[in-house]
Amino acid sequence: MKYKIPFSGRAHSFTKEEQDTVIEVMQKANPLTQGVYQESFQKKFCNFMDVDYAFALNNATSALELCAQLCQFNLGDEVIIPSHTYTASAYPFLKKGAKIIWSDIDLETRVVTAKTIESCITSKTKAIVVVHLYGYCADMPKIMQLAKRHNLLVIEDSAQAIGAKIKGKMAGTFGDFGVFSFHSHKNITTLGEGGMLIVKDEKIASIVPLLRHHGHCDFSYDRKNYWLPAMGNLDFPELYGNKLWPNNFCLGEVECALGEKLLERVELINADKRKRALQFIDELKEFTELEFHRVDSTRHNYHLLVARFIDKKRDTFIEKMSKKGVQCVVQYYPLNRYDFYRKAGYGDAKCPSADNFYDNMVSFPFSHIMDNQTFEDMIDITKTVLSELA
Amino acid sequence: MKYKIPFSGRAHSFTKEEQDTVIEVMQKANPLTQGVYQESFQKKFCNFMDVDYAFALNNATSALELCAQLCQFNLGDEVIIPSHTYTASAYPFLKKGAKIIWSDIDLETRVVTAKTIESCITSKTKAIVVVHLYGYCADMPKIMQLAKRHNLLVIEDSAQAIGAKIKGKMAGTFGDFGVFSFHSHKNITTLGEGGMLIVKDEKIASIVPLLRHHGHCDFSYDRKNYWLPAMGNLDFPELYGNKLWPNNFCLGEVECALGEKLLERVELINADKRKRALQFIDELKEFTELEFHRVDSTRHNYHLLVARFIDKKRDTFIEKMSKKGVQCVVQYYPLNRYDFYRKAGYGDAKCPSADNFYDNMVSFPFSHIMDNQTFEDMIDITKTVLSELA
Repeated sequence: MKYKIPFSGRAHSFTKEEQDTVIEVMQKANPLTQGVYQESFQKKFCNFMDVDYAFALNNATSALELCAQLCQFNLGDEVIIPSHTYTASAYPFLKKGAKIIWSDIDLETRVVTAKTIESCITSKTKAIVVVHLYGYCADMPKIMQLAKRHNLLVIEDSAQAIGAKIKGKMAGTFGDFGVFSFHSHKNITTLGEGGMLIVKDEKIASIVPLLRHHGHCDFSYDRKNYWLPAMGNLDFPELYGNKLWPNNFCLGEVECALGEKLLERVELINADKRKRALQFIDELKEFTELEFHRVDSTRHNYHLLVARFIDKKRDTFIEKMSKKGVQCVVQYYPLNRYDFYRKAGYGDAKCPSADNFYDNMVSFPFSHIMDNQTFEDMIDITKTVLSELA
Repeated sequence: MKYKIPFSGRAHSFTKEEQDTVIEVMQKANPLTQGVYQESFQKKFCNFMDVDYAFALNNATSALELCAQLCQFNLGDEVIIPSHTYTASAYPFLKKGAKIIWSDIDLETRVVTAKTIESCITSKTKAIVVVHLYGYCADMPKIMQLAKRHNLLVIEDSAQAIGAKIKGKMAGTFGDFGVFSFHSHKNITTLGEGGMLIVKDEKIASIVPLLRHHGHCDFSYDRKNYWLPAMGNLDFPELYGNKLWPNNFCLGEVECALGEKLLERVELINADKRKRALQFIDELKEFTELEFHRVDSTRHNYHLLVARFIDKKRDTFIEKMSKKGVQCVVQYYPLNRYDFYRKAGYGDAKCPSADNFYDNMVSFPFSHIMDNQTFEDMIDITKTVLSELA
């Protein structure tokens, strides 16, 4: 089916300057991976986030795989993860031997809270994955207090929340690890795939380059000739006496240069999306059966525009919208309900708010490439459909 | 140090048409990953290789990680791998639980043979990794006969050998798996990172998309509404009753479109390199202390231009070349000699030819972006240095 207003698979277009950057770097970068543009992208990302260590990666899943590796789970260790999130937030931890405990979300903010997490903590808990889903930064100050009290590692999955902040402190910079995505759907994208990992610990920062790039490192001694005994060394990244397996999670130089360029306007893109989200919410405020999460601050970047029906009419609504050419979707099936997690032994979750939200939620087409007329049309169609449903 | 003739970190430039493709696709692809360009790249790659199943991946290491996963090693299973290769050919197999047996190379062709492999076969051998190093296709017909006799899986690491062939049959299409790289150094590159995996088995082909992309799949039943129970399903890729972990190994749409475009001229690039390699070898034929592997056919794509000194003067040669502004390098430290493999328990290898070749080899600057004058200069300087050494 061809929609007049489709749910876009991409988030934004690229400016002339961004296109020129791509062409310039594809012609002149040497090498085309693991070079000066990666270095520069990471540096600019650190400045933007006000952190010391950031590592460009080929996608955000690779960042989460590294987090899972760096947690070094022992048999029986548990990690708390919201059931209402994308699968990449969760399965890397299973691959690395952790046991998942599903945490519920807050029905109003659609993200986890210190309270929903606290009820999942046991003597086996080693880490918490906090997901700033939809672009809203969860209550990190309180969650960090809780984590400190219980000595837990905190992974902030900020894949959707670049630029969201609490009192000037960026999402992804509170925890031990911060994960960012530059996937096609995200507020900024490095040609469809890309990610970034922030780490806090200096020792961990020293091994991420080896974990990312096959274990490549220098020899531990000065050499007379650059090729003897070999061009470079390969070694195990080690953490607390344990050897970790290396990977190839490298992001190309063109993508890095583009990412650096996009950082210049990510806050503008976020502001545009937030302005539109607030307009949409406010224009629909008479329809009280549709519950939005209205946040008029930089704490929400409105990566996505979602709402919950309180009257069980969600499915009729989407069907009617669809007939009028608007492709609304439903997102973040609670992970425990997928065949994958059921078969893995994680089919049970006590997450009533996640289930309630999912079963009644709608996600509107909301990419930055949507023009104003289309956006206005969507508001009108939404009003019409809601009126018909009343 | 700044070299007049550096060993380039990239292999080729991009034509105006290739640049236009990148700009066109970055503007119009929707989504920017896992879309129509991937489909089209894979199809064209299948046509080029004359195979049924090819899967674009974010790098060749991911292809090797998938091979290692798909071999499904049991405790004690062995995999035969040349010691003289890049690390990505080997460590994914360790990660998946296999035991490595290092195979030697043939000193003349610099790759493994049926004979060097056969001496490594035991009752525990499950798979063989054949690496067409430097761009020369190993003797696959004989190796496949050997593998059939012993019921072994064959992984052809053709990362450097795209377009090399034996009697019209492409490197990478003989074995159960064929691995290709579009890394910055390779004969064609998808912006610095990229890879492709060829598989033969239909059942395996059906699960690679899930292994590549988080386990995403359709529901097993027809649905009335596209969003119920969810937009799509997640499930375990299964093989012979075993569940395999999914990954995110996706290559972006822009990279796929560029890769497809580059396939149109890979054989021209290979022909250019082969012509130059033969010229270089022939112009130096009076210097018999320098042993090249001269192959005047498409069996060698001359990804790299390497030679072996038979008189122990390699190090003096490189030093003198370096002083004259030519950056020769030494490649493929036998893997068993790296700290990484020693610590992993694979420090011992009976590979005298690999050691001999490595200890006496030189790799000349040889990227496709080198202009003719520079190439002629390199020949002259090489002649001068060799004369001085005589």
